[in-house]
Amino acid sequence: MKIRIFITGGTFDKEYNELTGTLFFNDSHLPEMLELGRNLVPVDMRTLMMIDSLDMTDDDRSLIVEHCLKSPEDKIIITHGTDTMAVTAKVLSEKVKGKTIVLTGAMIPYKFGSSDGLFNLGSALAFVQTLPSGVYVAMNGRYFNAENVRKNKETGVFEETGKD
Amino acid sequence: MKIRIFITGGTFDKEYNELTGTLFFNDSHLPEMLELGRNLVPVDMRTLMMIDSLDMTDDDRSLIVEHCLKSPEDKIIITHGTDTMAVTAKVLSEKVKGKTIVLTGAMIPYKFGSSDGLFNLGSALAFVQTLPSGVYVAMNGRYFNAENVRKNKETGVFEETGKD
Amino acid sequence: MKIRIFITGGTFDKEYNELTGTLFFNDSHLPEMLELGRNLVPVDMRTLMMIDSLDMTDDDRSLIVEHCLKSPEDKIIITHGTDTMAVTAKVLSEKVKGKTIVLTGAMIPYKFGSSDGLFNLGSALAFVQTLPSGVYVAMNGRYFNAENVRKNKETGVFEETGKD
Amino acid sequence: MKIRIFITGGTFDKEYNELTGTLFFNDSHLPEMLELGRNLVPVDMRTLMMIDSLDMTDDDRSLIVEHCLKSPEDKIIITHGTDTMAVTAKVLSEKVKGKTIVLTGAMIPYKFGSSDGLFNLGSALAFVQTLPSGVYVAMNGRYFNAENVRKNKETGVFEETGKD
Repeated sequence: MKIRIFITGGTFDKEYNELTGTLFFNDSHLPEMLELGRNLVPVDMRTLMMIDSLDMTDDDRSLIVEHCLKSPEDKIIITHGTDTMAVTAKVLSEKVKGKTIVLTGAMIPYKFGSSDGLFNLGSALAFVQTLPSGVYVAMNGRYFNAENVRKNKETGVFEETGKD
Repeated sequence: MKIRIFITGGTFDKEYNELTGTLFFNDSHLPEMLELGRNLVPVDMRTLMMIDSLDMTDDDRSLIVEHCLKSPEDKIIITHGTDTMAVTAKVLSEKVKGKTIVLTGAMIPYKFGSSDGLFNLGSALAFVQTLPSGVYVAMNGRYFNAENVRKNKETGVFEETGKD
Repeated sequence: MKIRIFITGGTFDKEYNELTGTLFFNDSHLPEMLELGRNLVPVDMRTLMMIDSLDMTDDDRSLIVEHCLKSPEDKIIITHGTDTMAVTAKVLSEKVKGKTIVLTGAMIPYKFGSSDGLFNLGSALAFVQTLPSGVYVAMNGRYFNAENVRKNKETGVFEETGKD
Repeated sequence: MKIRIFITGGTFDKEYNELTGTLFFNDSHLPEMLELGRNLVPVDMRTLMMIDSLDMTDDDRSLIVEHCLKSPEDKIIITHGTDTMAVTAKVLSEKVKGKTIVLTGAMIPYKFGSSDGLFNLGSALAFVQTLPSGVYVAMNGRYFNAENVRKNKETGVFEETGKD
């Protein structure tokens, strides 16, 4: 059982540009993170884009859907910025059936010592192996169905919808 | 759904004693690790012992069994040294039925920058929420049934038994 | 011999705001860094401002000069953003005589695992104890006289002026 | 002005062996540390030995003396375990004249996230550039003359002798 990982950018992969003092995207840190975690689950990684999820367009989401549809693996992890992760999850849940897709990300860039990225990646890898087919968001040790999840903009935390 | 975490020591929690230049156990780093991972799954932690798993006795294992049996939660994570993790897992699988128990640990102490601990903890937390009742070892992104897992002493990696 | 440390902000102290995904200033990390370095040189720290050095005005520099003049200590370290560190150093060298003043900073925020900050702080603390009175920039293990130093905007490295 | 660095081991360079759960010496981390500190001072590194300073013999010290004597550079840093750093410093101060030699080390291995090594290395590099000829120990942001320094075994801290 091989797992497919699609990389789309997000806080996970932001780096600090020391010449300009701003954050930017370079190569993904996923390979390094999986090595640090001593991962032995067979994975195939592919970078689809390297963007802030606030900049993600409908076309970008169509591209992600397309890759999920044509991927031979039926267990897929997508690394994604948290701001619109719930939006992409909903699109995927409408378009891709019969596969287990887990979106995950980080609140703090991996290159910051204090990142939650490694924890989230470990949980996403476990969830994708064990959850039934469907689309999920994995953050904060929890998983949410794509149909009823949103990011609370004020707390930065994912929560189930209809829970006010 | 609250998850119970029992702490028994292991590489996870080893620290460096700067006066003697040796490794030792102090308080557990689990609370700090869960905070770093921004964990929001309700957990209850309890330290049962703080030992190297090579020093774990039958009495120690009986104590762990006893706590798993009387714990009101039926989802339990046990942090454990890797050297005898498979042994403890087998004992638990014989004595505790109807609960999901996941043992996890680390190859490198958490206080070392390059630890696999956060990754393993994230995966253990996900596995315990999703796997059916039984006893499991979660390492390297994978999970193993207690009945057929061993640590390969030469490679340091967990593998299924009967696979030579 | 007590050493005075004035904190003005700069990359040293930038943190990542996980709600907005941008870098910002919170409290200084100097106390934490000195503790990590197990520093035993008596120091007195005071935060004068917490700004990006590109935003530093003439008034801000006057305030720094004023504090250096009235400080009872004649050994002073100033943490400062690198972009205009050489400018502030020149102003200080014209206005403050008879004291040893060392400006230092970082190319990467301390909270990033890969920061040069701790190395620079160690060198600044050594330079301020051993250099004769004057104003200096300490970066990259080197020290420069305020009179002939500039930051090369393309390489991000400090160099002596008149060296093309 | 080139600086010579002699590496002798010590806590600085200890690593964690994940198969045996013990600390050991592999390659030195000095090159990595100087890169992290973005050091631009020209240095030449040479590993003389890779040992715990409690295991250092008179022959080992003679070898260090010999290398200091024949080194063309008159500014020398020696990385050294802290337990007998003061002993080696005294031997060097009797045998090597006319050079500035700074011994430094760490209380915590560099590969541990919380090491004082980078701070100490930064200070040693600054001290060796600015102190007059003589032999010194650089730890905790301070420098000591080889003639009157000892490590307090109880506190783990270096202090001047004759200060009880």
